[in-house]
Parts: sequence; structure tokens; C-alpha cells
Amino acid sequence: MSQTEISTLGEFGLIDRLTEGLEPKQASTVLAVGDDAAILNYPDTELLVTTDMLLENVHFDLTYVPLKHLGYKAAVVNFSDIYAMNGTPRQITVSLGISRRFTVEHIQALYEGIRLACEIYGVDIVGGDTCSSHQGLVISVTCIGDAPRGTAVKRSGAKPTDIICVSGDLGAAYMGLQLLEREKVASAGQSDFVPDFAGKEYIVERQLKPEARRDVIDALARAGIVPTAMMDISDGLSSELMHICKQSGVGCRVYEERIPIDYQTALMAEELNMNLVTAALNGGEDYELLFTVPLSAHDKVTQIPGVREIGYITDADKGCALVGRDGQSEIPLKAQGWNPLAEEQK
Amino acid sequence: MSQTEISTLGEFGLIDRLTEGLEPKQASTVLAVGDDAAILNYPDTELLVTTDMLLENVHFDLTYVPLKHLGYKAAVVNFSDIYAMNGTPRQITVSLGISRRFTVEHIQALYEGIRLACEIYGVDIVGGDTCSSHQGLVISVTCIGDAPRGTAVKRSGAKPTDIICVSGDLGAAYMGLQLLEREKVASAGQSDFVPDFAGKEYIVERQLKPEARRDVIDALARAGIVPTAMMDISDGLSSELMHICKQSGVGCRVYEERIPIDYQTALMAEELNMNLVTAALNGGEDYELLFTVPLSAHDKVTQIPGVREIGYITDADKGCALVGRDGQSEIPLKAQGWNPLAEEQK
Repeated sequence: MSQTEISTLGEFGLIDRLTEGLEPKQASTVLAVGDDAAILNYPDTELLVTTDMLLENVHFDLTYVPLKHLGYKAAVVNFSDIYAMNGTPRQITVSLGISRRFTVEHIQALYEGIRLACEIYGVDIVGGDTCSSHQGLVISVTCIGDAPRGTAVKRSGAKPTDIICVSGDLGAAYMGLQLLEREKVASAGQSDFVPDFAGKEYIVERQLKPEARRDVIDALARAGIVPTAMMDISDGLSSELMHICKQSGVGCRVYEERIPIDYQTALMAEELNMNLVTAALNGGEDYELLFTVPLSAHDKVTQIPGVREIGYITDADKGCALVGRDGQSEIPLKAQGWNPLAEEQK
Repeated sequence: MSQTEISTLGEFGLIDRLTEGLEPKQASTVLAVGDDAAILNYPDTELLVTTDMLLENVHFDLTYVPLKHLGYKAAVVNFSDIYAMNGTPRQITVSLGISRRFTVEHIQALYEGIRLACEIYGVDIVGGDTCSSHQGLVISVTCIGDAPRGTAVKRSGAKPTDIICVSGDLGAAYMGLQLLEREKVASAGQSDFVPDFAGKEYIVERQLKPEARRDVIDALARAGIVPTAMMDISDGLSSELMHICKQSGVGCRVYEERIPIDYQTALMAEELNMNLVTAALNGGEDYELLFTVPLSAHDKVTQIPGVREIGYITDADKGCALVGRDGQSEIPLKAQGWNPLAEEQK
């Protein structure tokens, strides 16, 4: 593919190219890209706002992350935060810092991924900022969504005896990252290296192209279940559980044997001689939903495909603990999740 | 001052420190920092959303920009975009990418500037993202504001015969930057260097600590004037005029002798042997307002302190031109503004 230097288009030319043919579809979008600010209209619902920043070589490694996938992920992780409030994502703004080694075609590929995610999840791109960077690729996305007034679910509403649920399975994105890193090391210096992902496609996809659990939010609504607390699992189950417990002023018990883990995740952990439960508890980027429901919702919630009860909420003085496979032993939960600003944890 | 490594606090500890004592004050803020998303409520007005990214060594040079000023500016440039829509800024989210050379105290200084700007302009901090960067400091701010439904002013409404107005004076922030750069070069290698800003305090302040023109928006409202088009001048008058003309499908004439320029700006241009009009037309970061009003508003608009009529809107086929001091010669306007993604322009 021919490559065009960004300097031949300039900032505004690049923005025109990237946003060509964008048609706002949300009723709440009054004015999208092209002015000092977007204009939105939310007369009947409450607004939800979240933002995520992705930095090259901190959050992603372009050695093995395709730009289109990266764009898709940058959008989806924001949608996930809106769903985690029991809301619906509606608009995003996209700010990009672009260093000189990127061409117009590179940034178009990135933007294609963002546009694809927006198309699939029904979200409008309404603004952003595009600038040059001396420092690798920077992506900052802000997502705006809404929920009927008073229905947004916070982290702070969990009550003792509530059931703790998670969607999907955990640890796969983290094991996918380990695999990608292993293949990167193996490929060093070999221009004709072909990475071997056979039988591990699922964990690679979980890392490179996560999805947000709109389906679970929809299923909860259909079942008439309003979670008492909810968040998405971006930093690892253990860390997120402790957020909910801290903000709700409660404790919890989670059963090791109930934590959902995919076969490929287990296989990869064994191959790399890593502790599987640690990976499932502390591996980040699964973007599954963690939520609590009243005991009375037990029958209904267990009928939702892909949702699993993993434990229950206790009084605060019981602390947060993992119950071992023997059903007896308890290990205090630690927030060992992905926390790059803290000391390295081994 | 003692310096604390950020790793001793970790991401969540740092966020707690930065947001300590923050009290949301806007009626539209339902839930601020601490959950997957902020919750806002705008039942009666239209929402405005804008975002700006600032990257170290592209948008700012920490050799001479104090972190507190930088934080202040990062917030204010977003407020300016909301005012430029004839709206009121209400909330911001703040995402930071922080490299290892910054301490907790550094980031607190940056955040103090952001908090000060929010206090002065009456804006709530409702969320953000904080992560480590391998690449210098990254600041991404998204601002949410509102305006009574149907009253937001776009760039696209200028009509032939409309009067073109600007607030304040132009070129000062750019000349302030030239001065700061000159002193930086002069100081190289001298630990006891004291920069000489005597008699040039105004242009330095315009560069380091810009303000958003809330006062002009308020004055327009009091005078009952609704601009037909408006934007803020961040990339230079010439570039912004061409945006308004392009998006409104019109042309314009601007009088060189009417362009407001401060005495210090003129002095600095002379000292550096630079063309003053070029600086005023193309120097960015003044954050003044550029707007058009119907001819009928002439009497009222000229009574607003600090607002100046500089030209008028024409049919599109007349193009965009600067009328020289002789009142006759016309030079086509060029968008030579600050455009770091384009080729270097000399």
C-alpha cells in the first residue's frame, strides 16, 4: 500500500480524511465534528461520561498490535465503562497524538477500527483533537452515554447477602498478552518469523479485540434485574472486587472453584508455568462485568447465558477473601491488578 | 520541598491525593470522580462537549512553563471552546500520562492549576484517567458545558454584511512564546541565569496563563446580541477567519489597521525584527473570541469594552482578504496558523 506523509495533508486535511462520510445517527447528537464543541441533547435521561488514555509502549505494543484492532479496543474499553454503569454509550471524542513515523494510511487504519466499533455499538464520533507527538502514539477517548434518570448503577450499592456475579471468563486477555510477548521475543531479529497461535486464537483475540458486554446489560434489563453495584473488570477481578467492597462499605467471599476460566487460558498458564488462579484474579483487560444482585434475583440471574455467581457480599468486618477449593481455607484478596504507577509487584 | 515518588502511592493513591476535598458545585453534577463514569443531568439545556490534548515539547516546554500554569492553561483552553459556542463550561475530565521523572509534588502542582481554573470559572472535575507514560507529560482534558436549547453559536452562521469582531488583542501570546524561547536559549548552560522580562510581563502572561473570555460572552448576553458565528482564536486570526468563511459559505474583508495589538506585542516584534501583522494574524494561543454580528448590532457591540470591529463578511466569490493600511490594497488571507502536522512554514 502506498504511504502518504501526514505533513502533505496537515491537521485539518487529516481530520477531513478521517471523518469523511461520518453520519451521526444518535437522536441525542445535534452537531458532531467541525466546530469548537459538539452539541448534544439529553432532555430525558442522565448523562454518563468516562475517559481512557492509551499510550504507546505502556498500554500497547505496535510490534504485535494491528492499528485497526487498537482503534477498536480504544473505543470499546470506553463503551465498557458506560455499560458498567448500566447505561448506553452514545458519543465519543477521539484525541490523537501522532509521531512522525506514522503515515496517513496508518492513522486511517487506526480510525477504521474506531469507526467499526462505533458502527457495531451504535455510537457517534462527535469531536476530538489531532496533534503531532514527539513521543509515540497517544490515544485519548472520552465517551458519553446515558441511562434513564436514577437507573445508573454505581460501585457503592452492594449490600451484605448480595450475590456476586461475573460475565464471561477471566484471565484470557492477560494470558493472550503473555503469548504475544513470548512470540515477540521469539521473533526478535527474524524477518520471516511466523508466530504460532494455533489453538490459542481465543486468548489472542481477547487481548487484541475485546468486546463490551452490551448483551449482558440487555439481558439484565429483560430479566428485570437492577444490579446493586457494578463495574467492568479492566484491572483484574481482585482489584475491582475491592473497589466495590470499599465503596459499598462491605466485605466479600469469592469461591475459587466458581471463577470462570476458559480452557485456552488454563492451557496457556500451564505452558508458561504460571498460577492460573492468580492470572484470573489479577490479569486485567477482560472487560467483563462484575456486579452484585439481591439474593432474590438468584433464580433469574442464573438463567442469563454467560453470567456466573462467584460469591457473596458480607459485612465489612469480614474483609475480602477467596475461599479455596476445599471450601474452607480463606486467602485475603489483594489488589495486585495492573497498576503501572505502583512499584513492580512479583 | 520534599519530593515523593509516585510509585509509593500508586495510581489510586495518587488520584485520591489529587482529588482530595473536591466538592462538586454544579447542579448538573450528580456523581463526580470515583466510579466507571460520572453522572450528569441536563434536562433543560443543550450539552456542549470539547476536548484538547497537550503534549510535552509539542505544546509546552517545561524549561520555562511552571506546572501550575500549565494545569491552569490546560483547563482554560477547554473553557474557551465552550464560551466560543456561547455556552457555559460545567464539568471537565482530566487524563494524565506521567513519566517517571515527575514526583507526586509535581503532579500536585499541575493539578492545583487545574483546580484553580475550575474554581475561578465555576467548573467541576468529574473524572479522568491517570497512567504512566514513557514519553513525557501528556494532558488530555474534555470539557462539558451547556447552553439554553437552540442558542449555541456555530461557525457556520455568518452572512454577507455581518460585522466581524474580535475581543482583546492579538499576537501577544505568540510574541510571549518568542521571548520565552529567546531567554531559554540565552540561559543554556548557566545555572544562575535570570531571564529578563522587564516591561514584557503582559506578553509572558498571555502565553503562560491565558484566560477564557467569559466576560465577553456575558456582555453579549446583557446587550441582547446573539452572534451569527463564533469561535475562539487558538490557531491565529487568519486561520480562524477562514474556518468561519468556509463553514458559512462566505468571504470577508478585514482591515489591517483595525487589528488590535498591544504595545508590548509591537515592541517585542520590533526587537526580534519580526513582522507585527504576520504575528497578529498567524500567532496562536490568544484565546480571544472571533465572532460576527448583524449590521444592526453595530451600535451595541461597539459599546462592549474590549470588543473591536475589524471587518465585514462578503459573498463567497469575493474570497478572504486583508485590506492594507492604504485602505485599497488587498492581500488574500492564508491559513498559516499554528499547524504542527503540516510542513514547516517560514
